[in-house]
This record gives sequence, C-alpha cells and structure tokens, in this order.
Amino acid sequence: MLKYQVQADRIHNDLANLRQFGKTPWDGVTRLPFTEEDRAAREYLLQEMQKAGLETSVDAVSSIIARREGTNSQEGSIMVGSHYDTVINGGAYDGILGVVCGLEVMRVLQEQNIPLKKPVELIAFNDEEGVRFNRGFTGSKALIGHVTDEDLWKTRDRNGISLGQAMQQSGFDPAKIPQLKRKPEEVSSYLELHVEQGPVLEAEALDIGIVTTIAGTWRTFVEIIGRPDHAGTTPMHMRKDPLVAAAKLIAKVPEFAHLVDPQGVATVGILQVEPNVANVVPSKVTFSLDIRSQFGGAAQTVTQRILEEARTICGESLECNVRMAMEEEPVHTDPILQQAIEDATALNGFTGKRMFSGAGHDAQIMALLCPVGMIFVPSRSGRSHSHLEYTSPEAIAKGAQVLLDTVLKLAQ
Amino acid sequence: MLKYQVQADRIHNDLANLRQFGKTPWDGVTRLPFTEEDRAAREYLLQEMQKAGLETSVDAVSSIIARREGTNSQEGSIMVGSHYDTVINGGAYDGILGVVCGLEVMRVLQEQNIPLKKPVELIAFNDEEGVRFNRGFTGSKALIGHVTDEDLWKTRDRNGISLGQAMQQSGFDPAKIPQLKRKPEEVSSYLELHVEQGPVLEAEALDIGIVTTIAGTWRTFVEIIGRPDHAGTTPMHMRKDPLVAAAKLIAKVPEFAHLVDPQGVATVGILQVEPNVANVVPSKVTFSLDIRSQFGGAAQTVTQRILEEARTICGESLECNVRMAMEEEPVHTDPILQQAIEDATALNGFTGKRMFSGAGHDAQIMALLCPVGMIFVPSRSGRSHSHLEYTSPEAIAKGAQVLLDTVLKLAQ
Repeated sequence: MLKYQVQADRIHNDLANLRQFGKTPWDGVTRLPFTEEDRAAREYLLQEMQKAGLETSVDAVSSIIARREGTNSQEGSIMVGSHYDTVINGGAYDGILGVVCGLEVMRVLQEQNIPLKKPVELIAFNDEEGVRFNRGFTGSKALIGHVTDEDLWKTRDRNGISLGQAMQQSGFDPAKIPQLKRKPEEVSSYLELHVEQGPVLEAEALDIGIVTTIAGTWRTFVEIIGRPDHAGTTPMHMRKDPLVAAAKLIAKVPEFAHLVDPQGVATVGILQVEPNVANVVPSKVTFSLDIRSQFGGAAQTVTQRILEEARTICGESLECNVRMAMEEEPVHTDPILQQAIEDATALNGFTGKRMFSGAGHDAQIMALLCPVGMIFVPSRSGRSHSHLEYTSPEAIAKGAQVLLDTVLKLAQ
Repeated sequence: MLKYQVQADRIHNDLANLRQFGKTPWDGVTRLPFTEEDRAAREYLLQEMQKAGLETSVDAVSSIIARREGTNSQEGSIMVGSHYDTVINGGAYDGILGVVCGLEVMRVLQEQNIPLKKPVELIAFNDEEGVRFNRGFTGSKALIGHVTDEDLWKTRDRNGISLGQAMQQSGFDPAKIPQLKRKPEEVSSYLELHVEQGPVLEAEALDIGIVTTIAGTWRTFVEIIGRPDHAGTTPMHMRKDPLVAAAKLIAKVPEFAHLVDPQGVATVGILQVEPNVANVVPSKVTFSLDIRSQFGGAAQTVTQRILEEARTICGESLECNVRMAMEEEPVHTDPILQQAIEDATALNGFTGKRMFSGAGHDAQIMALLCPVGMIFVPSRSGRSHSHLEYTSPEAIAKGAQVLLDTVLKLAQ
C-alpha cells in the first residue's frame, strides 16, 4: 500500500497567513462572524482551495465548501473540517487548525490524484463560537436545518445587529438557509481535527486524542438571597449572609465533580455579590454552576445533588433560586470512525488514547446528520481561547497525517 | 431636685423637616457634604438654634456650632452633637438624630434658664460618612488638627472635585482650618447620641445603649491568583482555581470571628472574580476582609490568623497577596461619662446596657481631644444606611432625656 504524506510546511504557512486576519497586538486573534477579518480569511481559504483544483462554494451562512468528486456518484461524502471564527482575543489554532489540516489533506489527494470511491468535502464553518450573537454552531446547524428565526432575528450583538442583519450586510441571504439542509445519504461521515484545549495529551506525552464523546453540559445560575447588614454592628449569629453560604457550597463543588464520573468536571466561573461593599454583609450572591460529564444523565445528577446541598446550606434563613441555562446531553462519536482514527494513529507509529471532549464542537451538531469522528492534537499547557494557545508544527503534522490516512481508509 | 423634660414632638418635627433636605423617592436621604441639600439643612439648623436664643457659628469645615455660656468662664465646655451628612440613600436618623436631640437639650436649658457652671456647645459635624471624598470625620478631625493637605487636595469626588475645592465653591475657606483646633482645656467632655445601627437593643428590648468602646477595625484586601482554564477540558486535579480556595476560606471566616472576642465580627463584603465567565475556571479572585473587635489587638490577631489560613489553603499552587486598607485600634469612652449615662438611664426608669459600637463615630476622633461618651438608641431590625432605618419617637425621646440628664449632671 502506497503511503502518502502531508507537508507540515504548507499547514504552517496557511496558519501563519490566516492568523493575520484578526491579529491582536499581543498575538491573539479576534475573527468574529460577518466582519472584515472574517471576509479576508474566507477569501484566503477560497483561493487556496481553488489553487488545489477544487470546486468551491460559499453557502448562505458563509460556510466555505471545497468538494472533490468520488468515483461512485451514489456515495455520500466524507466531510472534513472545523470552524474559521474565533473568540475575542482567541488563539490561532482553535477551529482554523481543522480547516487547514483538511485543506492539506485535499491538496495531497489532488496532487497525487488518488482515486477514491467517495466524494470528499472540506468544510469551514462560521460562527461556531457564538461570541458575537451568543448562539453559536450556526454553520453546522444550517446543515441539519436547525437555524431558527430566533437565532436569526432575536439575538443581537452589542451594537443591536441581529445575526440575520449581519448576514445581509455581508451579502448573504438568510432566506436561502433552508436549502442548506443535507440529506443523511449525502454525507457518510464527518471528521473534525481540533486542538484539545486541555492539558491531558501534553501531560501524558501523547500525539493523538481519539474523541469518544463530547461531554454533556448542565449549566445553572444559583441566586442566594440574604439580608444586607452593617458589617460592624450586626453580631455574627444575627446575620443572613449569602456569601458565606455560597462559599460553603463552592468549597465543596470539586468533591461533587466526580460523584458519578471520575472524569467529570464542575466549575463556578461567574460569581457576583450585591451590594459588594466592604462594610456591608452581602444581600445577594449569584453564581454559575457548569457541570460536564461524558456519561448520559451524569451532569444532571451532579447538578441536582449540588442544588440539594445548596438548599441544605441555605436552610430556612436564606432564599435559594435556580435558573437553568443549558441542558445538553453527551454526544458520542461513531465507534467505526474511532477505530479508523486509532488504526491511522498506529499505522504512523504515533501514540494516542481515547478520550472525551469537555468542550463543544461542530461535530456534536453534525452527529445529528451522520457518524462523526474527532481527532485531537495537544494544546501546550492546555491553554485555549487565549493568545497563549499553541500546538507545535510537528504535533500538527501528526494530526493532519492521521486525518489523511483516516480519509483514505473511509473514502475507498 | 427639679426634673426637666425633653419634648418628643419638637424632636420629631426637626427630624421630619430635615429629612426633606436630600429626600430620595423611596424615602431615604442623600445629603452629601457641600451640596445644595447640605446647605439647606445647615440653614434650618442655624435658624432653630437661633430661635432657641443660642449664639451660633459655622466653622471653616462647615460644622455648625451653637454655644451657651456657663457661669464659670474658666470651665471647658460640655460638647454634644453628631453629624448632619448622610450616606447615599441613607436613613433619616444616622447622624442627624444626635444633632436634633442635642438641639432639644439646648432648648430645654434655655427655656428653663437653667444655670450651669460649664458652657454647653451643640456641634453638628459635616462629612463624617466620607462617602463623597472617601475620607470622612472631616468636622471632628478639624477640631483636633488632623485635616491634612492630602485630605483637602488629593482625594476627589466622582466629578474630580477635591474636598478643598468643594469647600471653596460653598464659600468656606480651607486656609482657616488650622484655627479650628481646640485646646484640651476648652472642652471637658463630648457626648454623642446615635442610632445603634445594629439589632442588639431591639432584640433585648432595651431603651439605651451605653457605649464602652468603638470597635477597632482591620480591613484587608486579599487577592488569590490561579490560572484561567477551560471549564470543560481541564481535569479537576490539574486546575489552579482561586475561587474554590477563596470559598474554603470565606466559609471559615465566621468561625474566626470569635477567636479572641466572643462579640467580634468578621465580614467579606466585596468579592470579585476574573474573568467571571461561566465556562472559564477563574484566574483571579479579590475580596475584602473586615474584622472588628472591642479589644485592643484582637482585630489584628484575627486578621493575621485568617491570612495564615489563606496561605495554607493556597499552598504552593496559588499566589496569595494581601493589601492593608485600614488599621484602627478600638477607642474607649470615658468610664465617668459611662457612669453618668447609666445613672441618667436609671434615674428615668429606662433599661439599658453597656455595649460596644461596631461602627465608627465622630466620638472616636473627639476621644483624642477629651473624654467622650456615647448614647445609643435602638434601630428597628438593626437597619441603617438604608431608607429602612427607623427609631420610634418614643425611643428617641428616651435617648434625648438621658442626654439632657447627663448634660445637667456633667455641666454643674
């Protein structure tokens, strides 16, 4: 069997070029959907796809698609890709790495003129992060017909512009979105390469993460209401202090993280105190509770257990209110695709392990359309959504090689 | 011995009139120093003092003084008073109550033409709260020569106006402040009636609090620095979460409150999280620690013990920085004045107890000049610095009567 090789320098060159579109002074990247930076990145990607001799298109939600036909016109495509938008002051790898690695795979297929039974599609989604309009996954949701009128017209950016308006201002037609919905038979698999965004692969000195599951997330906001009192004149036993109650709970949150799943995580990321004055016992504390697990029902169970504890701590003297903000069950990748990625890893002599993703990805949306597989490459110090995000060219080349070999196997 | 009586309706009338100057829509009061509201209150008080036949003056820092001469010109005065400024959206009693009760005492002395050996001075201080310029005690500090150039020119309000500038704009001359310093022989005692601002007298159904001590306060700001991490992708054991550390400490703060002093208090009123995003493990948490006790050295000891605990919790993985913001030792009132207040309470058949003040008062500044005494009246539900602040006319009349009888005894 012939062995085809990706070229690390071409991927590195694409990354270096693309990080210019939205570069921030401290070397981070801000590329929000439907901005000048995003238009420039799209233009670059289209040019590179065309240079590789691929048929290109940009769909109504600004996903960029490059297609290579297969020898059997009846087969559903192997789709590879990720997203090309970033968070604010994000890194130069999150999302775009999966696009440029897919591009390199396409180049190799084209240059070597490799005959494959199945079509191969490279897709660069837009607005995965959801930073500008607070929704996210717009590109992938369009392919499964899940972009709603509320997504388009009800949520607005900081300047009061809706997603639909922003599309129109950039020359896209929201009325055409329903046409983007794919039929299951049109796509046989979706493969996404992404940076891990966590520290596990680096800590274990592994090349490749084979994603088994995208974790389920339960996110709630807890509000504890007490009574504002003078910090000097109110004896301790006469206080109703919601911050002390919140602290008792938050101190225990890490213990609850592993209640069901030894790899589950639990985070309080937001906490706000009112009136937030040094000489006043707080009247109200609000905090977020973000619980994730790869196991179905686990995040819910942990959340409920923590909320029970919150109510116990609050007792009769403090009011405890809970608002649900997110309830997402875990999404599993396809076992056959997991095996294909594992085989490709072994074929190249790389090290790898099966792991779950704690972060969300377009793959979790695409899983509603077709079998999905995900390839993780290491993130230095686990950093992501930061200018400190980094994956070495060598580590990237290994990921791209696994992606190429997986595509070659699946598309035959 | 003749018994003189204060008139509750006159005090009530003064309070009702004064609460108009700075009244907020929800019935609170905002009367900041050197504003239109404060000028109007000053004018009202001057008129009432003059109606009582008193010699009045307004000093260079806008303290209002009404003086009644004694029969012996060699004696230092008995000074009674409190402050007439408020916090923002404060109550109609904090500060001003001590002024109008002092005014009623003066009225009775004048009307009954009671001959007293010592002069009696009524003083209404301004800018005790320190809300506008973040300093406070300006009126009482002027009498002991503690108003500094930094107080006058370095600290500014939200509009960039310094205390000195604000004085000048209201027609006061900061250059004359040094002349306000009193000699110890000029003042024999300072008596301040004030609302308790706490729930103790109400809870114990007592009429009068005889203040023994104004608590010492140690206020520090603690900063715990960890590492921002993705809340989904970072395993629990690889995190450096400063909020969990802060929570462990804050949950224990109430236990430390009574370490030295069974009546000590400990409060975390301010807490801020960075970046304060639901899906990011916090990078930094900053919180205030306000420790008070009536015992010398106690607040310091408790603060140091809590900070030791903070460093233990942070261990090697989190950075813990501490900034001192306030170090005030307790100030004791004069035992002879305590006894005089207790005797006056008993004389009237009122109930009372000796207690400490957790809040600061002009009396703690005046204690550097002369013996001081403080009379507390109950605060409904302990509420203060709020439109909910309330003390009944009957409770106020009892306090004013005790103030009158104490003055009568001391001034003989």
